[in-house]
Amino acid sequence: MGGERAPECVVEGVARFVADDRATDVGLVGRPEVLRPLLGGMPRGRVEVIPATEVIEDADQPALAVRRKPDSSIAVGLSEVKAGRGDAFLSCGNTGALMAGGLFAFGRLPGVRRPALGSPFPDLVHPPHRWFMLDIGANMDATATDLCTYAVLGSVYARLAMGVERPRVALLNVGTEPHKGNEVAKKAHELLRDSGLEFAGNIEARQVFAGPVDVVVCDGFVGNIVLKSVEGLAAALAGAIREELMAGPVGRAGALLVRSQLRRAMRRLDYTAYGGAPLFGLAGLCVKCHGSSGAEAVSSGLRLTRDLVSRGLLPAMATALADLPRRPAEPTRPAEPAGPGWQPG
Amino acid sequence: MGGERAPECVVEGVARFVADDRATDVGLVGRPEVLRPLLGGMPRGRVEVIPATEVIEDADQPALAVRRKPDSSIAVGLSEVKAGRGDAFLSCGNTGALMAGGLFAFGRLPGVRRPALGSPFPDLVHPPHRWFMLDIGANMDATATDLCTYAVLGSVYARLAMGVERPRVALLNVGTEPHKGNEVAKKAHELLRDSGLEFAGNIEARQVFAGPVDVVVCDGFVGNIVLKSVEGLAAALAGAIREELMAGPVGRAGALLVRSQLRRAMRRLDYTAYGGAPLFGLAGLCVKCHGSSGAEAVSSGLRLTRDLVSRGLLPAMATALADLPRRPAEPTRPAEPAGPGWQPG
Repeated sequence: MGGERAPECVVEGVARFVADDRATDVGLVGRPEVLRPLLGGMPRGRVEVIPATEVIEDADQPALAVRRKPDSSIAVGLSEVKAGRGDAFLSCGNTGALMAGGLFAFGRLPGVRRPALGSPFPDLVHPPHRWFMLDIGANMDATATDLCTYAVLGSVYARLAMGVERPRVALLNVGTEPHKGNEVAKKAHELLRDSGLEFAGNIEARQVFAGPVDVVVCDGFVGNIVLKSVEGLAAALAGAIREELMAGPVGRAGALLVRSQLRRAMRRLDYTAYGGAPLFGLAGLCVKCHGSSGAEAVSSGLRLTRDLVSRGLLPAMATALADLPRRPAEPTRPAEPAGPGWQPG
Repeated sequence: MGGERAPECVVEGVARFVADDRATDVGLVGRPEVLRPLLGGMPRGRVEVIPATEVIEDADQPALAVRRKPDSSIAVGLSEVKAGRGDAFLSCGNTGALMAGGLFAFGRLPGVRRPALGSPFPDLVHPPHRWFMLDIGANMDATATDLCTYAVLGSVYARLAMGVERPRVALLNVGTEPHKGNEVAKKAHELLRDSGLEFAGNIEARQVFAGPVDVVVCDGFVGNIVLKSVEGLAAALAGAIREELMAGPVGRAGALLVRSQLRRAMRRLDYTAYGGAPLFGLAGLCVKCHGSSGAEAVSSGLRLTRDLVSRGLLPAMATALADLPRRPAEPTRPAEPAGPGWQPG
């Protein structure tokens, strides 16, 4: 029921997925009267409707929504997985509610203080390479240890989902030298250097789009702002290009010739087409697809989810976290949020 | 002596400035044997060479450089202003050294805990409007009070330098609701709401490029990362557009027609051409121009500096800071940097 193009595109994505994968069954959680009429062409017995009468809207306050709507598709789907009737839960819905519900249903992996959100990013200059950034907006006040945890989780993810043997992990910072950055970044640099990961050091925001690393780690506040800067700048730049092209007859003529090329260049930026990413740090597997996902993004999200299950993402993460060198506890930050401890951007 | 195109472009910028402004004299600080031969066409008596034998390089550690090179152009220039033989100092050199030297020479305005750096940004969609962001990289661990101070300083600057009667100030954040963001941002939102400024609330990074406000306030860590994201994304996107256009004959033909339009669109992003910005919070006027400034940027930086002096930027800032409602002291953050307390990005 979640996402801007639900339920039609979600159901269509499921149809594409089950047509292609004969070994994985899918449960569609939501209002039966809405979902059943859409299941026409599905192979018999492969797609089950799991009834949930309520829907969490994007405008709902995440933590409240999960508690107040226990029969929502998110809450019901998570309970199904928790009860062992499913291996993973995928949603295009309210990210915050999914995180709150996932925390409530599964708890955290040992060693994780706060979960994180991640997103694949395109490497604009060399299209085949993709990199991954976390946290993009779950943990607003990350400690150095949190950042180190995210590096471990991101590294396991890059290995299992992106097929990188030994993923290079970097810390987003204002300069490449170890002494650069705020107090948290300086401390995180130290922890990462001693983490046993393939730590590539600090990376500046101007370097990330040239894709020299596989995983970029940052605070959820900073990550969310970078993500939205990219969106905002891309939209503004597309507008500026359009204005300049349309300002005269030569530009208008040229625009007819280069329209599809420009569109392709801008589309390299569109990280929403990449089929989602798991919530990092939960003890159960929840994959979040972008709210604007179409059928292709949903079916690619389902393939990703299936692969993460079969490749054992969660056990691999638990092992990697246990292997992290133990450190004396760091001082916690002064004021911890009173709420559930996370916040979607 | 500072900047990538010094001394030629700096001297040429001075020449253009004094040709245009007959009431303002300029002292050029640096190596006389290098500068004197470049002064050929200058009007007599308007441009004085102030000898300084040392040069702080961009690679120098800022705080050390100012102490170890007391006869550097930055140190000598600042002393001249401190001694009352000048009203303001402009530099295209090492930002960190300028900040360290400026702090040492002038100290801070009352009420300022840590100075900030600012930069004008283009509003890509409606070219005539420019907005201003601070801090872009001086104060890596800003408190909520620091952010409120920057809002006051930025607001005075927007009024005197950009001519905005009642500047709209916003707080860069991950969402527009007051409860969004990290602990510092939440607290800063409260302080700004009660500050008496024209506070437009939180602004998301995707909105800033559409220019709905005049001043955007953020932590130096976040601001520097946003600035560099913009640079990195613009460069990567320009590369992607070039690749797509050059991939086929139609694109190549179209590219010939639209080259100048695309260049104009990308140039709207080029905030380095805007003639610099003062260091915010110092008790003396230091204007920093971008290291890659050409003659036009230098002469526009000089015009800006002259205007900031004649319009009384520093007294106006001092007054505005004194007018800020008094607040109980906020808890300081756990670990303060041991160094001079600022860091260039």
